[in-house]
This record gives sequence, C-alpha cells and structure tokens, in this order.
Amino acid sequence: MAKYKRILITGAAGRLGSRLRGGLAHLADTIRLTDVNPIADLGPNEEFVQADLDDLDAVVAACEGCDAIVHFGARADEDKWQVILHSNIIGGYNVYEGARRGGAKRVVYASSVHAIGFHKIVDQIDAHAPHRPDSLYGVAKCFMEDLSRMYFDKFGLESVCCRIFSSFPEPADRRHLWSYLSFDDCVRMVEASLRAPVVEHTILFATSDNREKGFDNRLAGHIGFHPQDNTEPFRAAMEAATPEIDPKLPRFRFLGGYMTELPHPDDAKA
Amino acid sequence: MAKYKRILITGAAGRLGSRLRGGLAHLADTIRLTDVNPIADLGPNEEFVQADLDDLDAVVAACEGCDAIVHFGARADEDKWQVILHSNIIGGYNVYEGARRGGAKRVVYASSVHAIGFHKIVDQIDAHAPHRPDSLYGVAKCFMEDLSRMYFDKFGLESVCCRIFSSFPEPADRRHLWSYLSFDDCVRMVEASLRAPVVEHTILFATSDNREKGFDNRLAGHIGFHPQDNTEPFRAAMEAATPEIDPKLPRFRFLGGYMTELPHPDDAKA
Amino acid sequence: MAKYKRILITGAAGRLGSRLRGGLAHLADTIRLTDVNPIADLGPNEEFVQADLDDLDAVVAACEGCDAIVHFGARADEDKWQVILHSNIIGGYNVYEGARRGGAKRVVYASSVHAIGFHKIVDQIDAHAPHRPDSLYGVAKCFMEDLSRMYFDKFGLESVCCRIFSSFPEPADRRHLWSYLSFDDCVRMVEASLRAPVVEHTILFATSDNREKGFDNRLAGHIGFHPQDNTEPFRAAMEAATPEIDPKLPRFRFLGGYMTELPHPDDAKA
Amino acid sequence: MAKYKRILITGAAGRLGSRLRGGLAHLADTIRLTDVNPIADLGPNEEFVQADLDDLDAVVAACEGCDAIVHFGARADEDKWQVILHSNIIGGYNVYEGARRGGAKRVVYASSVHAIGFHKIVDQIDAHAPHRPDSLYGVAKCFMEDLSRMYFDKFGLESVCCRIFSSFPEPADRRHLWSYLSFDDCVRMVEASLRAPVVEHTILFATSDNREKGFDNRLAGHIGFHPQDNTEPFRAAMEAATPEIDPKLPRFRFLGGYMTELPHPDDAKA
Amino acid sequence: MAKYKRILITGAAGRLGSRLRGGLAHLADTIRLTDVNPIADLGPNEEFVQADLDDLDAVVAACEGCDAIVHFGARADEDKWQVILHSNIIGGYNVYEGARRGGAKRVVYASSVHAIGFHKIVDQIDAHAPHRPDSLYGVAKCFMEDLSRMYFDKFGLESVCCRIFSSFPEPADRRHLWSYLSFDDCVRMVEASLRAPVVEHTILFATSDNREKGFDNRLAGHIGFHPQDNTEPFRAAMEAATPEIDPKLPRFRFLGGYMTELPHPDDAKA
Amino acid sequence: MAKYKRILITGAAGRLGSRLRGGLAHLADTIRLTDVNPIADLGPNEEFVQADLDDLDAVVAACEGCDAIVHFGARADEDKWQVILHSNIIGGYNVYEGARRGGAKRVVYASSVHAIGFHKIVDQIDAHAPHRPDSLYGVAKCFMEDLSRMYFDKFGLESVCCRIFSSFPEPADRRHLWSYLSFDDCVRMVEASLRAPVVEHTILFATSDNREKGFDNRLAGHIGFHPQDNTEPFRAAMEAATPEIDPKLPRFRFLGGYMTELPHPDDAKA
Repeated sequence: MAKYKRILITGAAGRLGSRLRGGLAHLADTIRLTDVNPIADLGPNEEFVQADLDDLDAVVAACEGCDAIVHFGARADEDKWQVILHSNIIGGYNVYEGARRGGAKRVVYASSVHAIGFHKIVDQIDAHAPHRPDSLYGVAKCFMEDLSRMYFDKFGLESVCCRIFSSFPEPADRRHLWSYLSFDDCVRMVEASLRAPVVEHTILFATSDNREKGFDNRLAGHIGFHPQDNTEPFRAAMEAATPEIDPKLPRFRFLGGYMTELPHPDDAKA
Repeated sequence: MAKYKRILITGAAGRLGSRLRGGLAHLADTIRLTDVNPIADLGPNEEFVQADLDDLDAVVAACEGCDAIVHFGARADEDKWQVILHSNIIGGYNVYEGARRGGAKRVVYASSVHAIGFHKIVDQIDAHAPHRPDSLYGVAKCFMEDLSRMYFDKFGLESVCCRIFSSFPEPADRRHLWSYLSFDDCVRMVEASLRAPVVEHTILFATSDNREKGFDNRLAGHIGFHPQDNTEPFRAAMEAATPEIDPKLPRFRFLGGYMTELPHPDDAKA
Repeated sequence: MAKYKRILITGAAGRLGSRLRGGLAHLADTIRLTDVNPIADLGPNEEFVQADLDDLDAVVAACEGCDAIVHFGARADEDKWQVILHSNIIGGYNVYEGARRGGAKRVVYASSVHAIGFHKIVDQIDAHAPHRPDSLYGVAKCFMEDLSRMYFDKFGLESVCCRIFSSFPEPADRRHLWSYLSFDDCVRMVEASLRAPVVEHTILFATSDNREKGFDNRLAGHIGFHPQDNTEPFRAAMEAATPEIDPKLPRFRFLGGYMTELPHPDDAKA
Repeated sequence: MAKYKRILITGAAGRLGSRLRGGLAHLADTIRLTDVNPIADLGPNEEFVQADLDDLDAVVAACEGCDAIVHFGARADEDKWQVILHSNIIGGYNVYEGARRGGAKRVVYASSVHAIGFHKIVDQIDAHAPHRPDSLYGVAKCFMEDLSRMYFDKFGLESVCCRIFSSFPEPADRRHLWSYLSFDDCVRMVEASLRAPVVEHTILFATSDNREKGFDNRLAGHIGFHPQDNTEPFRAAMEAATPEIDPKLPRFRFLGGYMTELPHPDDAKA
Repeated sequence: MAKYKRILITGAAGRLGSRLRGGLAHLADTIRLTDVNPIADLGPNEEFVQADLDDLDAVVAACEGCDAIVHFGARADEDKWQVILHSNIIGGYNVYEGARRGGAKRVVYASSVHAIGFHKIVDQIDAHAPHRPDSLYGVAKCFMEDLSRMYFDKFGLESVCCRIFSSFPEPADRRHLWSYLSFDDCVRMVEASLRAPVVEHTILFATSDNREKGFDNRLAGHIGFHPQDNTEPFRAAMEAATPEIDPKLPRFRFLGGYMTELPHPDDAKA
Repeated sequence: MAKYKRILITGAAGRLGSRLRGGLAHLADTIRLTDVNPIADLGPNEEFVQADLDDLDAVVAACEGCDAIVHFGARADEDKWQVILHSNIIGGYNVYEGARRGGAKRVVYASSVHAIGFHKIVDQIDAHAPHRPDSLYGVAKCFMEDLSRMYFDKFGLESVCCRIFSSFPEPADRRHLWSYLSFDDCVRMVEASLRAPVVEHTILFATSDNREKGFDNRLAGHIGFHPQDNTEPFRAAMEAATPEIDPKLPRFRFLGGYMTELPHPDDAKA
C-alpha cells in the first residue's frame, strides 16, 4: 500500500490518541506522537515530540516533515472559556498553521457531535445542516470545521472532520446505545479517512453501526468508513438502567445529549 | 429491559392485531386488548376491554392506565364515507383523546401507504413528501397523521405513524413483490417503535427488506427498524402470474396500487 | 372576459363571505349564495340557497349547476371537537361531494395558517412544508387540504387552498402587522384563484403585502395573486400597544399565534 | 418468470455486449443480437441482425418485433465530433426510433458517468443533479438521456439509463477502486433493469459494491440493483501502483476522471 | 461603458435576431450579423457574413474576431429529425466550436421552454430542475445547454442559456398571458446577459413581468434581468377568446404548451 | 412606537458605527456608545463608555443595562491572526458575554460576506448554505455566527447576523455594483433588525437593491429589510473603469471578492 512518510498524532497520550498509535502504524513509515504529557513506551516506528498545543512554535516544529496529521488533541469536554480558547481554538489554529507551513497534505480532525448538538435526533440531519453548537466546546469544534474549510479552499490542505459522538471503552448511558463509537471503529474511521484518495473537505458523522441512528452519513460515501461494531451487546443492561425517558428533555431530544443542558461554564462555582 | 406497565392494542382481534399480541408480550407487564369483537383466549399477562372505536367514553376507558397504545383498529380498506368517518376518523380521534386523557406516552399508529398513494414509485419519496391520499381511506390516514402531529406539538404525546404498504399472510399479487410487509417484520416494526428512546412524531415507511424499494426511509433511522424478511421466495410464482405490466396504469405507477383506480365508494351500487 | 356560469359562495353571510359577494360579481353570470342563515338583500345576479353544511343532501343541491365554488363557510375558530367535526370536517366533505357530483371545475377553499401553525416564522416555510396544525381547527383545515388533493388526483377537480392568516376589518394585535390580510386583498386572492388558467391543487399563503413576511409564496406564482395593501398605516399604534414581546412564547414564535397556546377545547369548562 | 418475447442487444460484439448475451438468455424467448461486425457463434435462442447504428432503416429493421432493447452499442470513448455525432447521437436516435416504431416497451441504455463527469466525487450527487458532461462523449450521453426522457413523457417508452462508471475485466488504475463495475455486476444491473415492474425513466448509477462510493443511488431503489462484487481484492496492488494522489487534479476530484482533462478531440493531431 | 469589440448575432435576419441588431448596437464597436439569408440594410457599425449554420468552416469564419456571440439562429419550431439535427444540433455545435476557436468569451444562447416543457406550471421549477424536453426541438435545446455547460467547465467559455417561452409581436393565445416575452424585454435580457460581470454557465427563464408566473428565476439573480413589460393590456381579449380551459390537457398543464401534444414529426404526412 | 430602553453600539467611532448613531436615535431612550477611541460630540440621548473589546470586564460593564446591542466593533478587514483573535474572536465573545450577563434581549451583529466568501456568485446561495470563509477575518465571522446561534439555542438571546457585503461611502470597484450596501440602507437594515417582533437567530444578506444580485434573502423575510438605494448611478463609471473581467479569477467568481485571493496574513512581510 502507498504509505505516508510521517503521520503526526496530536493528543497521543489521550483516550483515543493512544488507541490510534497501534491502529495507524501500518499506514506510515513513521508515526510521530505529540502531547503535552510525555510518552515513554515508543514503538519501533514511533517518535515523540512534546508540545503544548497553545504554543505555535512548538506545534509548527512538531508538524515539520509530516505529510498527514491526525489531530485528536485538546480539551475533550465542556470547560471554561479560557480553557476552550487556549486548548481548542488557539491550539487548533496552531495545528492547521503547522500543517500548512510543514506542507502536510491532509488532516484528520476529531470534531464532535457538539458542533451540531442542538439539532434533534428525529431530524436525521446530514452534513449540509448548519452548525448548531451546544456549548463553548461545540463552538470551538465549529470554529475548527470552518477554519479547515478555509484552509482547503485557499491553501489546498485536505481535511476530514470526524464528528465523533460518544467514544468510550463501552457505552455508559442510555443515549450511547445509538451514539456510541467503539475504539476499534474509531481506528477504522481514521484509517479510512487517511486512505480515501480524495477528501477535499469532508464532514463525517461517527458512530458504530448501532441499531438506531441519529444522522444521515451519505455525503461521506467517498471516505469508505464502514463501522463493524454495534451496541446490541450492551442494550439489555442499558435499557434496564434507564427505565424512564422523558422525550421533552433536551438531553434526549437533541443530538448533543447532556451538553445541551449544561449552564454557561463560567457561571459554575470554582 | 425497561418495560411499559400496560400496552393497549386496538383492533386486537384483527389480522395484524392478533399477531401483535404475542410479539409484544415481553415489552409490558400487561397487554390490554380491545376490539369491537370479543377475544376469548387471553394469555397470562393479557386483559380484554371490549369497545367500539366510535364510542368516545368506551375508548377513553380502554386507554385508562396504559402508557403506550398500539392503534391498529378501524376499517382496513376503502369504504363508504360513513364507514370511514366513524371507524377511522372519529374512532381515531377517540383513541388519541383516550391516550391524552389517560396519560399515555406514546402511540404506534397503523398508518398506510394510502396516505401518499398518488406519489409515483419512481419518485422514491421520503417522509417529507406532502400527503397525496388515493382514497377516502387514505384521507383518513392523513387526518390521523396530522392529528397525531398536533397531539405531539401541543400535548407532548409521541407517535410513530407506520405507513404499512401490504401486510398479508403472503404476497398476493405482482405489486406485493416490493410492497409486502411480512407479519414478523410488522411485529419487529412495532417493537422498534416502542423501544426507540425518542420518537417525537415520526413517519415510518413499512415494507419487508424486498429487493425493489419504493421509498426512502432514512428519516426514520432513530426507530431502528430493520426488516428481516423479503419476497424473493415468492418472486418466480408472482412474476409468472403477472406476465403483462402496463406502466401507464395508475395501479402500477403509483405507490397506492389498485386503490388509486377505485371510483368514489359512494358511487358504487349497494 | 371568460365568465363562469355560476359561482357558489358558502358562508356567504359571514365576515369574509359577505365581502366576496360584490367582489366576485363580475366573474359569473350568477352568484349563488348559501349559508345556514338567511340572506335578504340579494343583488341582481345573486340567488340564495339556504343550507346547513352538515346536511349532505342540502349541500349537494346547493352545488348543483355551479361550475366554481368558493368555500368560505364553516366554523372559523378553534372549538369543541363536535363543532369542528360537524362544521368543518363533515361540512367540508359535503362541499367537495357537492362539487364533484355537480360537475364543478374548481373550488377556492378558505384554508388557514392554522394548518401549519406550529412551524416557526423564522423558518419561512413554503407550500412543500408538511402540515403542523396547531388546534382541532387546524387539523380540520389539513383534512380539507388532503381531501381536496385527492379530489384533484382522482377526480380532476381543481382547488386553490388559500391559507388565510388574519383577515379582519383591521389589524387587532402586534402579530397582525405581518399576518394581516385586508378584505380587499382577500377578494383579489379569490379572484386570482378563479381566473388563473390552471391551478391543479395549489396551496397559497395569504397575507397582504406587509413589510415583514412569514412565508415563501413562490410555489403559487401561477395564481397571480398580488396583494395591494399593507399594515404600515397601523404600525405605530400596534407597536405602541405591544411594548414587550417575549420571543420564547409560542404565540410569537409560531405562525399560528395564540392558537398554539390554547388548551384542548374539550377541556374547557362549559 | 414472465419472459420478454425478444430482447435486442446492440453492440453485441463489444466488450460488455458479449457478456450480456449469456447473462440475459433466460429473460426472453429470443435474444436478437446486432452489431456492425458479424457474430458467428450464435447460441440456441440467439439470432443476429447486422446493422450500422448510423443507418436508420437498418436499425428500425433490427428493432422490429423486439419488446425490449438493451442499447450498449456505439463508440465507447471520447472521439472526434464526427465519430460521436454519427455513432452516439445519430445512432442513438435511430435506436429510439426503432424502439418506438417497433413497439418496444423498454430500453436499457448504457449511459455513462461522463454525462455528469464534472461533478465532484465529494459532492455525492444523486440522479437529480444537473448534467455536467466532461467530453463530447459525455454530451452525447446527455443527449440520449434527454431524448429517452422525451420518448417516455411523450410516447410512453420506458428507459433505464445506466450511468456506467468503469467496466473492464478488472480495475486498471487507482480511481477504479471506487468506480469499477464488474462484468457480473453489469449483467445483474441489466437484468434488474429489465425485470423491475415499472421504471418510467430512471437514472441509475452503476458501480460494484466498492468500499468507497462516489454517488447516492437512492432514487433508483425500484430497480432492485444490488451489486455483489467489490474491488477489495485489487486494493493493495492498486494503492501501491499510485503512490501519489494530487487532490487538486481534475482526474482525481471529478467523477469523470481522466476524461475531464482531455483536450478537445478535434484539436488532436491526426 | 466597457464595450465588446465585436458581437456576432446569428439568425440576424430572423424574428428576434432582427430586433437585437438595434438593441445591442451600443454594446460593441462592431455588430457582426450572420444568417443563411442575406441582409441588405446594414447600419453604420454593422457588418454581415453569410453562413449556413450547418457549415462548420463558414461558422468558424463568422466567429473569428468576435468576443461575444448571441446565438439566436437555427430552426425555431418543432420539425423533422433531419432538420433539427442539421440546424439545431450540428449548427449549434458549430457555433460553439466557432466561439472556442475564435476566442470568444461569452455566448448568449436562445434556449427554450421546450427544454423543460414536460414540467408542470404548478411545479414552479427553477434552474436546478432536470431537463424534460417536449419535442425533438426541445431535445436539441437540451443538447445545447449540455454542450455549453461542458464548454464552460472544460474550456472556460461562459454562456447564458435563455429559456425563451413565447416571443412574438404580441400574445397570440391564452397561454401567452403568462408565457409571453415582449421583444423589448428580449433585448433587455440579452443586454443584461452580455453586461453581467460573471455568468459562468447560467440558465435564465425568460418571460415578461406577467401577472401569472410559471417558474422561479431566483438562480439567475446575477444576470440582472428585469423585464419591464407585461400582458395585462392583452388580458381581456385573450380571456374572452379562450372561454374553456381543460386543466387536464397537456397543452395547459405543462410548461411547453401545445408542443407537448404534437406527434413525432416524422410521423406526419409530407 | 415601543422603544428600547438603552441600545449599545460597539465600534461607535467607526465607519458604520458613526452612521448608526443618528439613525437609531429614535429607537431607544438612550443610545450608549462604546469604542476603544473616545467620542466627544455626544448627542442629547447619547452616553459614552470607553472600552477595548478585548477586555471582558470593560465590555461587561458597557453592556450593563442595555436591552439591545448593535455590535459593529472589531477589526473590519483581513489581518494577522493575533489581531483577528483578539479583536474579532475574543472581543466578539466578550460582547456576547456582556449581552448575556447584562440581560440584553437582542444583538444585531455586523457579520460579513467573508463568512461565505468561497461560495460562487452564480450559486445564488441562501442562509442555509454552509460556511465557506475566505480569510481569517471570515473564519472569525463564522465563529461569531456559531457562537450567537448557541447563545440563542441555550440562553434565549436573539441575534440578527447581517452579512454585510461592501459598505462604503460609494462603490469603489466593479464588484461593488452588485455587492454595495449604502450607509442609509445599512441603517435601515439595523433598524429593521431591531424592530422585527421575533428574530430568534437570523442570517441576513445585506446589500442595497442593486440590479444584479448575488444571493437569495428569502429566509430573512421576517426582518422586513427593504433596501431603498442601488448602484445604477455609479454603473457607467464603474464599468468603464473595469474594461476586462476574467471570470476565472476568484476575485470575480466568488462572493468574497479580492479577499479570496489574499495570502495568509502571517506570511506577509511586516
């Protein structure tokens, strides 16, 4: 197979990043890892560059010589504005600048359902639906999708923005029965995003092949992402654990789940 | 699994209703049956309440204490206006009033292809297509879909309107090769409609997984209905029995089949 | 101009019906009026047939010999189910049966914004939007739109369903600034609907040419309805009379206005 | 099964035509073959009529007595205007005139991706997308799709226009990984197009069931075409053979591939 | 104003072509006229080149040195295949080749409603609607729209395809009340098409500003065509002359009018 | 008329802000102005609060007691990332936080064509089209549109995002003939945005009523913005000044004009 020379994984010490290391190893001569935290157990074709995403120079240096970037770093939940601003917005911008200056061809970006969290599950939206973020976190995801759109239109840098719904070791609540993305399917998604011959700027909805679906992924057919897992093994236990669903509550009606009900993060007591 | 306390099945002595009794038994502590005709062979978790759908008080009483209603009662074919008016329109209204007054959370309603029967099969409509009923029967189905839409928007009562195409013991004519819904798939459809966590007001097209398809069901992905049967076992015999298809005839072109060619039912001789 | 032989106006003694008598006089040799109440002051080309819409035989007799029907009769507000059922549903059915049996070519029907009252003004819907009635009254309007669709598809009887928003002597509240239809524009609308060469089954949104608009009427371009009035003369007084708008209230957000907030009419105390 | 009496295959000596002979044999009492070149090895239910598509009288004669026509003849690549004009445009017109005059009920036409070759793969178009031909060859395919649309609307002659992407013995370049249609799937496609009960005028996108997809075929669900092959067995070799993809090049971005980059065929040196 | 150096008008001796001569004179230093018939009365900035559109060399010569081409030549009604083929298809191809080889920047092409004549007036189509030609003449118009699309996508030659509905000295039948394009509005349309800064490949629907409209022209807003005439002065006489409209007849229902009812032109007796 | 108590204008010393002061005076008891630069000439119902948008506390203080905010402050052209980040992104966030904390009901925000600058003029997009920013400046506008969407969905704060195309004293180049928004129309736009009874979250395209249009504004009909000016008085001079348009250049094809061709602002030499 045609390999990349060097793939950079940001957030490589994180929950998903650490799973991607092994899964993507066969796609490149070298996998470069970066994280704000050190990574000790490097594999044979792995290398590590420590960097805070907030530091443009460090990020540019980490991107140097990488023809593909898998950007899974940054804060992965709602947080105060200063955290989101520095980790997700400034950090995200820095990664795209690193990609552009370093001559990368493609970025696979861990976007999120929270970019469109205020759409209803019954509306079965597709990738043409306008942004409706449900949180500051979601607004930052929108920012990254828009930024990457401009980096493709203007600079020719391709991106796949994978709107991950719920990626955890296993489903943790009732909503996850339809929103869950298994770690293995997450790796399949990134691999497909890296191997597809042309992606330009693609929005991909990302769950496993669960029985109930909350979106229409037909506009990403050229990625060739075919999830293999589903949540049926967890169904009985999950349904039993959530005997009462109130369909009027935002957490059930909207794609974004509980995040649609969170208050402004800067209102919370420290 | 999270069970309903009591599911009411209307038309429980009918062709489809009688199949639903067994199929839904595991979903509730009690299955209450209602029909204008008596039902003798009650199972261990079944109870029976006799009621004419046309009688509001009787229907309200039947709905009392039911948290879900599977409304499969009423006249199941084109008929004179007075029959459709009383059985399908007034009877249907009574069921929704029963549901609302009794505090039910969800109704699964046996709507029909005849609500959109004058759309063409080649147009591959989805649930956003406007109503185009093909008969008084179809107009009554539209009435019920619109009524249930209002009961959700105003009163929060959820509904799944299942547009059943052709549900019989087995395919009976050439059109059924694509329009057939097996009884087992019909049960799967109702079960999925009852188990889906949020349905708000959903329109579901309902056939088995036949080779040829006449609609686009993507807007009901959150129901998780996956038919398991298909009509291939019947194909050779059916095709042989219908050597000549005239694609200009409404019965072949339109989703509603023969019903699009029926005269006004009140013009027929008594 | 090509005249109709005889136009029937139902509800001819009502608020709008009485305005239509003069406005349509030049379009037919004879204007036949019908109402449950008597009309005394008949003009030279007018004739009167008393009929309760609920009475099929009487309605059929009234329609006899009419090549066009302007159906503005029936209850014009939310009401108890039995009223809506008899006046709007059964009465409306009777008018279409009268039209069909009497050989009329076209019906102009006073439908209503309340057939789509739960759509939001900011969504700027067009005639392809699904029904979202806001009341029993609205459900009956949906019923009539669906019934007339079938009468065209099956029997070739043309209809223009005019979704009247707010037609009163003058604007009466803040919402009317965008929803108002003057009586003169209402007459223009019916005249255009009668004169357009082909209408098949057309949905027309009907307000005056007000500064703010709540819908997209482009799908009715073949009707040639061009309202001439607007609410600017009433603006200053109306805005002063409604100093506080709460955009979260259904009465302001949704097309249907206050009717979206009404309780079920049968819950009200007698 | 209900058989056709006589199916005519044009271009029966060609790459795809010769594969169709065996595949369609069971669908008709007689398979009539036509080609500008002679065919010697006729099977038991085969007959041969030699004809140049450019010759109206010969084509009309070949169509005589055929109730279905599988039109796979004509130039199968970009070529000079005079070749395209005579083989594809005039020849194609002659086949439709032959079908009409001979009373055929249905034509299955080998249209091509090149009718919409200037749409981008990432746009995932469906059959409603406007024509965007990429070559004179593609313009001729558009002509045939439009001509056949008129022959249905006016004369009731049904057509399935199969937009074949890349049908070869096996995938020959990187783009074929998503665009390839195996010969066996091609036969399945024609069989489904002949057997579907009603097709009116249908546009069908035609590739095998490859991992990556470049279009949305939902509008052809009534054809019942389910490809069984895919290109995974060829993937490793193909990816290795195309190490560098430049997503800015038309040959990769657009559905039509290399044909979007060809100069005008009449500019080429003889 | 920025002038063109030389505008070529084809069909300059024809009904519309002769009106364009004066109307476009101020837009170019030189107006070159071409027609198969001689033109004697040349104005001061006019020049004439006689050419049969069917003759590629002659057409190429006529196009030489022209930076814009207004292609209004060719047969302007339904006709036998050989006429349409030579005058409209081959002739039209020759004009685009002339434009391409001569380095023209823009073509304004007299397309026709007959390219979409089998769409219904009540469907209010826009420029995204697929072709539905109503005649061989209409198929040739589709061919030209598709050819010009390719000449823009591949060679950068801009086109405005003006779908002229009914352009005559004055309205001649009832349908013209909505379909009429006055000669003055026709000139305005061509002028706007020539002056708009960017047109790429634009489809423009072309009638005067008549009271009833049969299409949605919003996708051509960048052309800036604002018709100034309408058919109201002709209405009374026209309506009187067409007392009976049968909305079931194709000539009234479909955009293409009478042409939808014509038989195949080669079936007609000589 | 119903007045606001206090409207805050940000950027009140700027090009557009200074024009808004007078134009909005009649809409509120008090107009509060804010800018990083001092404003000396306060009118009778004006008050001034100096604030740098980058300073959250200062902005929150400025918003205190204002029931509407007209946010026209921040950098108004492409600039280096640090400028855009602080002035447009952080500054914009601060204004929305100020609005939320201060209890404002509505924000009118000066968004920009550059949020969708990479859409083509010939595509005639509407407000449902996805973001396609053409610059860092455009990305910041997208950020603000997304942020304000969330502030409405979650906190109920209404916004009108006015995508201003080109607002200058008069048209300055050829593109402005269609993209120009006069200062008077800009004031009309803000006034309409403040007076419309319900806006939820509205996207409004903003030019004067120019002959050529580059977008479809029908989704903002409820705002009631009717521009009164146009660029015809400037046309002759502008067309003469731009004799050559190359329709292949991004600056002419795309809505965003010259900004689509700018390099990354951080690549420019200081």
